[in-house]
This record gives sequence, C-alpha cells and structure tokens, in this order.
Amino acid sequence: MIEEPGFSAASEDMAARSCYRELHSCVFDYSTPRIALIKSRKIGLMNRVVQLGILVYVIGWVFVWEKGYQEFDAVVSSVSSKVKGVAVTNTSALGSRIWDVADYIIPAQEENAFFVMTNLIITQNQTQGNCPELPEPSTTCSSDHNCTPGIVGPSSNGVQTGKCVYYNDHVKTCEVFAWCPVENDTEVPERNILPNISTSYLKTCVYDRVNHPFCPIFHLGSVVNEAGESFQDMAILGGVIGIQIKWNCDLDKNFSKCVPRYSFRRLDNRELDHNVSPGYNFRSAKYYKNSDNIESRTLMKVYGIRFDILVFGTAGKFDIIPTMINIGSGIALLGVTTVLCDFIVFQFFKKRNYYKEKKYKYVEDYDQLVGNEDNGSNP
Amino acid sequence: MIEEPGFSAASEDMAARSCYRELHSCVFDYSTPRIALIKSRKIGLMNRVVQLGILVYVIGWVFVWEKGYQEFDAVVSSVSSKVKGVAVTNTSALGSRIWDVADYIIPAQEENAFFVMTNLIITQNQTQGNCPELPEPSTTCSSDHNCTPGIVGPSSNGVQTGKCVYYNDHVKTCEVFAWCPVENDTEVPERNILPNISTSYLKTCVYDRVNHPFCPIFHLGSVVNEAGESFQDMAILGGVIGIQIKWNCDLDKNFSKCVPRYSFRRLDNRELDHNVSPGYNFRSAKYYKNSDNIESRTLMKVYGIRFDILVFGTAGKFDIIPTMINIGSGIALLGVTTVLCDFIVFQFFKKRNYYKEKKYKYVEDYDQLVGNEDNGSNP
Amino acid sequence: MIEEPGFSAASEDMAARSCYRELHSCVFDYSTPRIALIKSRKIGLMNRVVQLGILVYVIGWVFVWEKGYQEFDAVVSSVSSKVKGVAVTNTSALGSRIWDVADYIIPAQEENAFFVMTNLIITQNQTQGNCPELPEPSTTCSSDHNCTPGIVGPSSNGVQTGKCVYYNDHVKTCEVFAWCPVENDTEVPERNILPNISTSYLKTCVYDRVNHPFCPIFHLGSVVNEAGESFQDMAILGGVIGIQIKWNCDLDKNFSKCVPRYSFRRLDNRELDHNVSPGYNFRSAKYYKNSDNIESRTLMKVYGIRFDILVFGTAGKFDIIPTMINIGSGIALLGVTTVLCDFIVFQFFKKRNYYKEKKYKYVEDYDQLVGNEDNGSNP
Repeated sequence: MIEEPGFSAASEDMAARSCYRELHSCVFDYSTPRIALIKSRKIGLMNRVVQLGILVYVIGWVFVWEKGYQEFDAVVSSVSSKVKGVAVTNTSALGSRIWDVADYIIPAQEENAFFVMTNLIITQNQTQGNCPELPEPSTTCSSDHNCTPGIVGPSSNGVQTGKCVYYNDHVKTCEVFAWCPVENDTEVPERNILPNISTSYLKTCVYDRVNHPFCPIFHLGSVVNEAGESFQDMAILGGVIGIQIKWNCDLDKNFSKCVPRYSFRRLDNRELDHNVSPGYNFRSAKYYKNSDNIESRTLMKVYGIRFDILVFGTAGKFDIIPTMINIGSGIALLGVTTVLCDFIVFQFFKKRNYYKEKKYKYVEDYDQLVGNEDNGSNP
Repeated sequence: MIEEPGFSAASEDMAARSCYRELHSCVFDYSTPRIALIKSRKIGLMNRVVQLGILVYVIGWVFVWEKGYQEFDAVVSSVSSKVKGVAVTNTSALGSRIWDVADYIIPAQEENAFFVMTNLIITQNQTQGNCPELPEPSTTCSSDHNCTPGIVGPSSNGVQTGKCVYYNDHVKTCEVFAWCPVENDTEVPERNILPNISTSYLKTCVYDRVNHPFCPIFHLGSVVNEAGESFQDMAILGGVIGIQIKWNCDLDKNFSKCVPRYSFRRLDNRELDHNVSPGYNFRSAKYYKNSDNIESRTLMKVYGIRFDILVFGTAGKFDIIPTMINIGSGIALLGVTTVLCDFIVFQFFKKRNYYKEKKYKYVEDYDQLVGNEDNGSNP
Repeated sequence: MIEEPGFSAASEDMAARSCYRELHSCVFDYSTPRIALIKSRKIGLMNRVVQLGILVYVIGWVFVWEKGYQEFDAVVSSVSSKVKGVAVTNTSALGSRIWDVADYIIPAQEENAFFVMTNLIITQNQTQGNCPELPEPSTTCSSDHNCTPGIVGPSSNGVQTGKCVYYNDHVKTCEVFAWCPVENDTEVPERNILPNISTSYLKTCVYDRVNHPFCPIFHLGSVVNEAGESFQDMAILGGVIGIQIKWNCDLDKNFSKCVPRYSFRRLDNRELDHNVSPGYNFRSAKYYKNSDNIESRTLMKVYGIRFDILVFGTAGKFDIIPTMINIGSGIALLGVTTVLCDFIVFQFFKKRNYYKEKKYKYVEDYDQLVGNEDNGSNP
C-alpha cells in the first residue's frame, strides 16, 4: 500500500478502498503463527514431558481433585437441640433433690446452643437489706473508719453503708446494702449433680464416631470425651464445648451423599495463667414473694457446660466461570513450556546458533538500515 | 557468535562484549512472532466467529452479567425483633386466661430468633417428693419386685424408689423421687391459644409479598402461610420457621438499591418417619414458695414456633485482581482459537500440505544432519 | 504424504506407517514459534517497559500485597461474655433497691450477645382479671356502647369485656380482661439505674483503643463512647451496640501475630422518622403465688443495651490453585504486550510496510491460486 499525492477526490477514493481492503483482510484472512519444527528427540521429548506435567496438574489436581469447575457457597444454618435426663443430688444445703431438664437448662431454649448446669453455688432466701460483705482484703475492716459510705468495689455485692460489722466470730467486714445474705463463692463444691444426663432418647441410635457417625443423638459424656476432656473435671468449673458440624456438599452428585460430619472441641481457654475467668459460669436468680409481699430470691451461681453448635462447610456446584478461569490459566501455563524449552535450547545446546538462525529472523532498524546503505537484514 | 581459543585477556574482553551485546539485544530488540497470513475466506471467517464467541462470553457473561470485575464479601449481621398481641384461652385446667408477650415469648429476648408459644401442657404445683411414674411399658408394675431403687430410665421423670404404687384406679407404676405430680404429656391438646398474635403495630405497613416486599413488619400467620404451612397445624406440635433475608448488594451502584428480600421456609423436618422428635417444644418452669418456705413449681411443656432470622448475601465491589484474572484467562482462551483453526486446516483441508509448508519450517536435528552430510533442512 | 490407489494391504501398511510417522513427529518434534527480532530501540524499549509494568503488578500487587498465593477461609467463632458490677436506684415505686448481675442481665446467658438492663417500667402485683384499659384515642369511652365485647386491639393489653369504666377521676376507658392493673408505659422514666456497671474485673487490663487494643475486658461506658454514642442518652430508650471483632490471620506467618481487632458501632436505627420502634426494649415478668394459690406477676418493660458480638475475618494459607491461577493469568496478560506493540508498529511507524513484510508471510488461498494459474503467494 503506497500512498501517493493526488487529487483530493482520488485520494479519498483510495483511502476508502484501502480501508475496505484492510477490513476485508481483517475479517477473511487467517493469521497463524509460523512455527519452526525442530526434529530433536531430546528437546521434543522434554517439551512433551513438561506439557504433560502441566496437563496432569490442571486436569488431575485442579479439576478432578479440587473440583475447579465448581462455584462454592457457604452454609446458612439453623440448629434445634433437645436435652433429656434427670439427676439427683444430696447436699447439706438442699437435702435430697431431683434435677430435671426444666431445672438444669438455662435459658429454657436457645438457638444453635444449649447450656447444661453441672455445678451450683446456691444462696437461698436473699432479701434486699444491709449485711456484712464477703471477707476479702479490700472489705475486711476493724472499725467504721475503714468503710466509706456509697463506695462500690468492682467485685463487691452492693453499696457500702459505712459501718464495720461482724461477718462471723473472727472477721469483721464493711456492711453493704445488697441482696442479703451475700453469696459466698470462695469455694466451688466438687461436682454434685448430673451423673445420668444424656441428650439421648435411646429409642433410636446414639452417636458413635465409628459405628454411627451420622446419628444426631449424643451422650453428653461422650461428646466431652471426644473433645479430649474429662467430664468429671469439666463439670466442676464448667466450660464451652463446640459441636462442629462440617457439611461439605457436592451438589453435582446425588443429594443423599450430602451428609454432616460431627466433631467436638473444647472452645474455652484451659490455660489458667492466660485466663481472667476459667470455666463457664453465670448467675441466675429465682424470685419469690412471701405473704407480707416482701420479695426474696434464691441466687444461683451456675457452673456448667455450654454446647455451641457450629455449622460450617461449603456446597459446590458446576459453574462456567471458575471452569473457564482454570482452563484459561492452564492454557497460559502451557505457554511456559515453550519459553522453558527455548531457554534450554538456546542456552545449553551446543549448536544453539544453528537453531537460533532457524527460529529468528533478524530485522534491522529501518532508519539505521537506510543510513547503512540498504544492506540485507537477515544474516 | 563463534568462540575461538585465544589469549585469556582477549577472551575475557570478548566474553564481556558478548555479554553486553546480549543484554543490549534483550532490552532493545523487539521480538514478535512471525505470522503466516492465510487468505482463505472459510478459515478466516471461522477464526473470527470463534474469537467473537469467546469475546461475547468474556465480556457479556463474565463481566456484564456475573460482574467478574467485583470482589465479593459475605454479610455480617445482627437482627432485632419484637412481637405484639394478646390471646385468650379457656381450658378446664386454667379457666379463662389471658396471654401476653411476657407470657408467650420464652426467653424474653434472643438474638436473631424469637420463640412464640402456641400450645402448652401445664403441670401446676409440683413439689419435690415421691409419686407414681407416668404409665409406660417400662414403668408399669405389679409388685415392688418390678421396680429397682436408684434406677433412672432414659425418659423417666425421676429416680425409682423401689416401690410399686397406684397411678390411678387401674394402673400401678413404679414410684419415683421427682417433681410431683409428674407431667402427663401423652396427649397434646389441640391448639388452645394464640388466635390474634401478630408482630405488627399496624401503625405503619405490613409485609406483603406483592405490595410491600420491603416492609419489616409481619403477621405471624402470613409468615407461616408464605412458608407453605398451615398455622393451625403447626401450632399444635410447634416447629421452626426460617425468615430468610437475602441482602445482595452492588456497592458500585447507588446504596439505595441495596435492599433486603424476605422469604420464608419451614426448617424442621416434617417427615414423621425420619424424625426422632417432631415439632418444636421444650420445658420451662416457674418456681414459687409458700408461706412454709416449701418450693413448688409450675412445669410447662411449651410447644411453639421458633422463628430463626437467617441473613445471607454478598456485597460486590470493583477490584483489580478478579478483573485481571478474568481478562487474563479470557486472553488465554482466545489463544485456543488458533489451535482449533490450525487443527481444522491441517486435518480437513484438501490442500493441507500446501498450508503446512507455509506455516512450518522443518529444522533437522543438527547432530543427525552433520551425520547425513549437511543437506538442507527445509523441504 | 500422498495417498495413492493400490492394493489394500499395501495401502493399510502405508496408512499405519504414516500414522506412526505422525505420532513420532508429535512426540519427538519440538515446535517453537518463529520470531521476527526487530532491532529498534523505540519499540524494543516500549515492549520491555510494558512487560515490566505487568510484572510489577503481578508480583508486587497480586502476590506480595494482596497475597494472591493464598486460599482464604472465613471465621467460625463462638464467644463467651461475662458482666460484673452493681447499681443502686431510689425510686418512689420501689424505694431503695440494689441491682446486681442476676437482676439486670436477661436472659442469664446468651451465645455471642448479652443484654444489660438500663431502664425499667415496673408494674407490680398483676393478677388476671378485669380492669380499665390504658387511655388512648381508641380505648377511651363515654358509655358501654363504645366498647365491643371480645375485641382485641393491636396494641391492647387484653380482651374487651364491653363495659366502660373509670380509669381515673377524669377518664373512662373500656374494661379489658387482662393482667391487672395494666402497664402504663406512656412515660419512660429518665435513666434510673446502672451508674457503676462495668464488664471489668480490674484485676488485669481494661480495653483501651490506644494502650490496650487486645485486652478483652471492657468498660460498658467506653464501649458505648467508642461507638460514638452517649451512654446517658442510650440508657433511656436502649439500643443495640455491635462489638465487632475483626480477626484476619496469615496462617503462613507466626500464629502469635494472629490477633483480634476490636471496634464498636451502634447497630439500631437512630433516625426516629424511619423507625417503627426506636431503642431496644422487651417485656419480662416474674411470677408469684400467694398463700391462697392465686398467681400474680411483676411485669417489667425492660429498656437496655444489647451488645452483639460480631466476629468476622479471613484466614489465608498458601495454596497451589490460586497461585497458579494468578501466575497463569499474569502470563496471559504478558501476551498483551506483543499485541499492543504490534499495533503501534503497524499503525504509527513510518516504515510499517517494511516491518509487515518481515513479520507476515502472505499465503494465497490455494483454490483461488490454482484458478489464477499458480503464481507465487509471497509478495
């Protein structure tokens, strides 16, 4: 295509023709790269081995094993749970006492979790009034001067009245306005309830890691054991156990293969050094009124095991986009083979210059070329 | 570049020069693949059509439709709910009784869920003591020999004392130490409460799938209906309804278009055969003390509908990495066109050998070539 | 490869040989694209600069900064919380009264959230019976004709009996069957409890954005302040505060660097115009029985702050697939350089035709060629 000076009309005509020719060429010409086909066993074989390796990775690992053709989405879940069983305790404070589900599950229902009381510090018949504080370095006193009216310590049970009174025969503590008598939680009783509790109906299956891995009915004791803990130890101070339900599904396969896997783990921190509050406990109260309309309450510092049901997992389904992304990047990786083999041929082969001549066409810079009096560009 | 033996200094100088030349060539030479431009309408057109198909897929599907230029993130959410309404029941056990929010919502507040009592088995004035167990095949007895002291059955209400006593005029059952009298939940009453409960204030809108799809106020009855269930049926044994809030947002667009879509679904298993515990119920108790300080309680086996609010969705925002990954894999896919067209030309075209000659330069193995007395390598 | 007609055996032999030759060639021949090496500083440099830019983007941004070699997974979490502190109130209705954890946390324990009562409308000694409804435009009446037996208004406290009775000396309202006397929540008292509550033990650290950003012990007041709210204001009508725990981890690095970041945000809608129910409140009741076995209750409309603990974040770990996808798409992007440089050379360079000749080999359509009497195809 040589552009010559000419009349404007002719020039325009030519430009239009040249434009049409270019468009025609663009649509109807097929451009394919020219290839130098080197008949060398060494490099030919190497090329194929590297390509095979990349193909095996893309097809075997990315597609078959990791299911690179699937789009993944996370689980949205809701779990209901139910606890069954009764327990008896025989303590000096309460005498013989039976505990059933309505007693030891607090609150009565929760979403994705349930709490089972395993130990208890009970303080019965508290009423609002003035009484001595629990003895502690900051609350013991010898006279009223040690106590300041209106002060509320960070761990105190009430507001100091400013008086110093006898807590027992030996110790005097500051008097507080509080729910009286104040709770004494300095000693945690050794596990005194819950020997027989199970989540099981026993009408049907019971979960077992080996024989019944899909059964959704668990013995609380086995759950704690599977988490690597001792129920006896954990019952005293309480704790948090995670019931992990892993639910990975391949929606391209039969839905019946989409089953949950259960595993169990202690979630609260057992290292007493790094823990401001070991175990799991909280305070709960039952309120009463006597015939004179005076309110009293029974305060319970409740120790127990909270079971948190954590559902996670992904569901995969064939999707064109991840498939194409993986195919595309696989093809691009195949291109690396040529770069690698070229590097080996042109760096390490004895007769690299012979091959170079075949592969490359050296094109001199035209401007420089004209200056050098138009000699051939191909060495 | 031919390396000859020579003096060490000259050789080093040459090596340095050759090294410089190579670096210079690497930086300033532009290597572009040589192309065979085949002027064939058939193959040229085919090539363009396949390329167009890939372009349409990449731009139309991946970018415009699936928003391949966005990075997605999941929703983190917190939902508050509130229930309003009162109900009246008239039963032989309780007489006329009114139920308001404080009575039928248990516990009083939950995160992302709320429970509405719809049916009730009430056992009033239970105290701890000895009484006959509920008749069941495993608890009926004819004499004390049938009852073992200390045994706790999996569904029993307490610990057996070893005595066999009359449950009523006809049946004798083992005596248990339990909250007495034991609850009789063999018959679930037909729905006896909750005709008028709604979550609505009625001051403003009420959710309607067609007219008010964004209103966050729901009639409980409509929620259950939208889930394809009958409120009347579900109220008897209870159940779990998921209030699904799908909140997909395109953060590249106006924030006001980022609105939630509500849908409703029953989550508990209705198939009675595959279900250890159909419906949704739990036990809750209210505790009292009489003037002699004896504790009694009213046990309630509470049936009802738990509404779980499940929020899910993704928010997408432009991000360079997914954009580049999709562009990169799209370019790689375009490379497939050439492979495909070459395959067709060299397998199915009549004059494939003519085209082959133009595309390929056959380079003989040099070693072999020298052995064959240096004949030309290009056929 | 020319196929000639011949004896079937010979032809088969030939086909087998040709097939073997093709397979041999496929495995042992190395095909590398032929390259035109243009010695031009301008275009050579441009080519390298564009390639460098792409490399810097892929290595610097995708791999080093955005960690494109990692597979990411979301957090699955469970949070325990504990609240400490007491408060005193002095109101005409209740007199002097102390509030501790068991009083102001409702329910006693929750997963991933806790509610702290900050204000209260208390209605003591309610019993089931007939009493006048709270005065409102829809409930005030002058005679029994204004009241319809059996009607339950959407915000009413009970079922109308059809009588019109005196609510006080001035106003008559319809009588309802309800928990009597009905609650009067028309005026919300100014914050009357909770001056000293903190979640802190003070034995150890207390969270501070600057000095103790990792301490898990918070003053409720500071939490509300960090969320940009005033505790005094929020305590009156209540609200929802999100304690956001962002936990992004790089599992390829030391685990000790995997620490949570806390931030706080008000989650409920403060705009009174767009809100059907400003603040956060619910109703809770305590039930009592007197010596005549008549049940009464104390209804509490509880205002307070619900703290929702929202854990989110991602954990990244080296994975081969995202690495290869990013490398592959990076390589494909490098291919763009040639397309871009070719475009510039063949569009804007003065001697583009000189370069075109070197790069392209024009192959005429064979069919057309034969029609044109076999003239040369290469211009």
